[in-house]
Amino acid sequence: MLTEQQYRELINEAITAINYPAEPSGLYQPISYTLAGGGKRLRPILLLAAAHSCGTAPDKAMKQALGIEMFHNFTLLHDDVMDNADMRHGRPTVHKHWNNPTAILSGDAMLTMATSMISDCRPDKLRNVLDLFNKTAMEIYQGQQYDMDFEQMPGLVSVNQYMHMIRLKTSVLLGCACQMGALVAGAEESTQKALYRFGENLGLAFQLQDDWLDTFGNPDIFGKNIGGDILNDKQTFLLISTINKASEKQRQRLASMAGQRSVEKIEYYTHLYRELGAEQECRQMINHYGSESIKALNQSGIPADAINFFTNLAQASLTRTH
Amino acid sequence: MLTEQQYRELINEAITAINYPAEPSGLYQPISYTLAGGGKRLRPILLLAAAHSCGTAPDKAMKQALGIEMFHNFTLLHDDVMDNADMRHGRPTVHKHWNNPTAILSGDAMLTMATSMISDCRPDKLRNVLDLFNKTAMEIYQGQQYDMDFEQMPGLVSVNQYMHMIRLKTSVLLGCACQMGALVAGAEESTQKALYRFGENLGLAFQLQDDWLDTFGNPDIFGKNIGGDILNDKQTFLLISTINKASEKQRQRLASMAGQRSVEKIEYYTHLYRELGAEQECRQMINHYGSESIKALNQSGIPADAINFFTNLAQASLTRTH
Repeated sequence: MLTEQQYRELINEAITAINYPAEPSGLYQPISYTLAGGGKRLRPILLLAAAHSCGTAPDKAMKQALGIEMFHNFTLLHDDVMDNADMRHGRPTVHKHWNNPTAILSGDAMLTMATSMISDCRPDKLRNVLDLFNKTAMEIYQGQQYDMDFEQMPGLVSVNQYMHMIRLKTSVLLGCACQMGALVAGAEESTQKALYRFGENLGLAFQLQDDWLDTFGNPDIFGKNIGGDILNDKQTFLLISTINKASEKQRQRLASMAGQRSVEKIEYYTHLYRELGAEQECRQMINHYGSESIKALNQSGIPADAINFFTNLAQASLTRTH
Repeated sequence: MLTEQQYRELINEAITAINYPAEPSGLYQPISYTLAGGGKRLRPILLLAAAHSCGTAPDKAMKQALGIEMFHNFTLLHDDVMDNADMRHGRPTVHKHWNNPTAILSGDAMLTMATSMISDCRPDKLRNVLDLFNKTAMEIYQGQQYDMDFEQMPGLVSVNQYMHMIRLKTSVLLGCACQMGALVAGAEESTQKALYRFGENLGLAFQLQDDWLDTFGNPDIFGKNIGGDILNDKQTFLLISTINKASEKQRQRLASMAGQRSVEKIEYYTHLYRELGAEQECRQMINHYGSESIKALNQSGIPADAINFFTNLAQASLTRTH
């Protein structure tokens, strides 16, 4: 196994080496811009490391790793249009830098390019690789739809519904990346499934950590402003759990602040998140899904050094500060 | 061979029978709405008939036919968002009936569903089917990009650039449909390529006929208002050819009317299209590409009744009045 940073460097080199057609530049420049934007490269790292842990060198799984990263960036690009988000990784989003038609069309091209890259595998693996990818893509669209639906029904979303949504929107792609690495490496189905569960549980813990950081992160380290989710009335685990536990009076005060963009709102929500135990519950959930991911890892049958790699990666993800 | 109408009915039955998940309905209802909107079903008819002409019954190629129609409808759905079009097939477009995020996300799901349907073929065909589809999809995005680029550079587009754009945006999908039918039927590559050229040339003639009808169609028969392209300053063969032939004075008058939405503008443009010979040239081009398509057909090696079917379909397309 390599280190996480070594896998990341291999991926970044391969991203830099992607050869886009020169014309029409209006189609390809936004794609190159999007992929150059950085990000953690978590999904392709998982894919390469999963393949490596099953005996396949990173360069033999790089096409699939690039495909997964291309797909992930396509979802971010289109999500940014849908959410009308201005910034991503500290730079203007594609639809702000160019315009909506450019962002829509470049995203479409990224989805087709991702499918092509992922399909660039040994013929005997093609059916399974493609089916896994297409199934996962549909789940992610479902997750995004639920996320948009939830914005229209504040206060009515249950914790179970929220967990279902983030499983679809975020976790299944991490599971898919892990399984696909094992799949292209020719691992047994039991190993593939265990690595999928590792990625899926890691993804749940990862998203809950994201929610937690948005409210309780250190503003000097966290890349975004603290309290953004609160200001935007975003349904998160912390808010849903707090509404469930709140008294009638507290609920009314929460509801009365919806739509506001004040420091007082951030302070009151944060206070309630702590007071009613949602913060602690969130930390417990993160630990729970973290443990589940390690449990799956230990059922995968991969070598000890690979288990060690993934365990460290999971622990770093779930205690991360940005 | 069946009749064109019989193929269409089989396709419409199969579209009606598509089983969408019930939830999230916000994702799947717009897809069902889009596919129920009608249209000529030209692409899946070409695919089924090409397969049939190579010895494969329509039901054995129906998944690919549905996939091609799903893909075509995805491109229309996203194009309508990009062009901010209100109506399609006499009904509100998805982004008007719902909203932009719904139209973007449902379109993304349609692209993945189309890929899944097209990939639902015999394992030994999967690689070629998928490569043909992905290559074609990329060409179509390029065509759409050129089409959008041309709107920013009125008067500077050459006939060659225009023909290149419509080849990418429209023709390659007709070529792809024909080749894919032959491919899933296991036809020889020479047959596949000849049927591709048939579809591609038919597509060029078809698009030129579309341009022609928009100006010279009979308003009682043509589904849209006559002169829409003129009012919208759309770059078409007729306009480009006319600008090339126009005197300095005529060019200035054309330029002075850009942006106007008057009957006088339609009348003057239409007058010049006739006067300077662009209309006649357009009819000659339609006939030229029509002949090329029949030439390719005769090189395909398919049986006489199949040649007859496709010849009739081409002639009906190129003399159509709506």
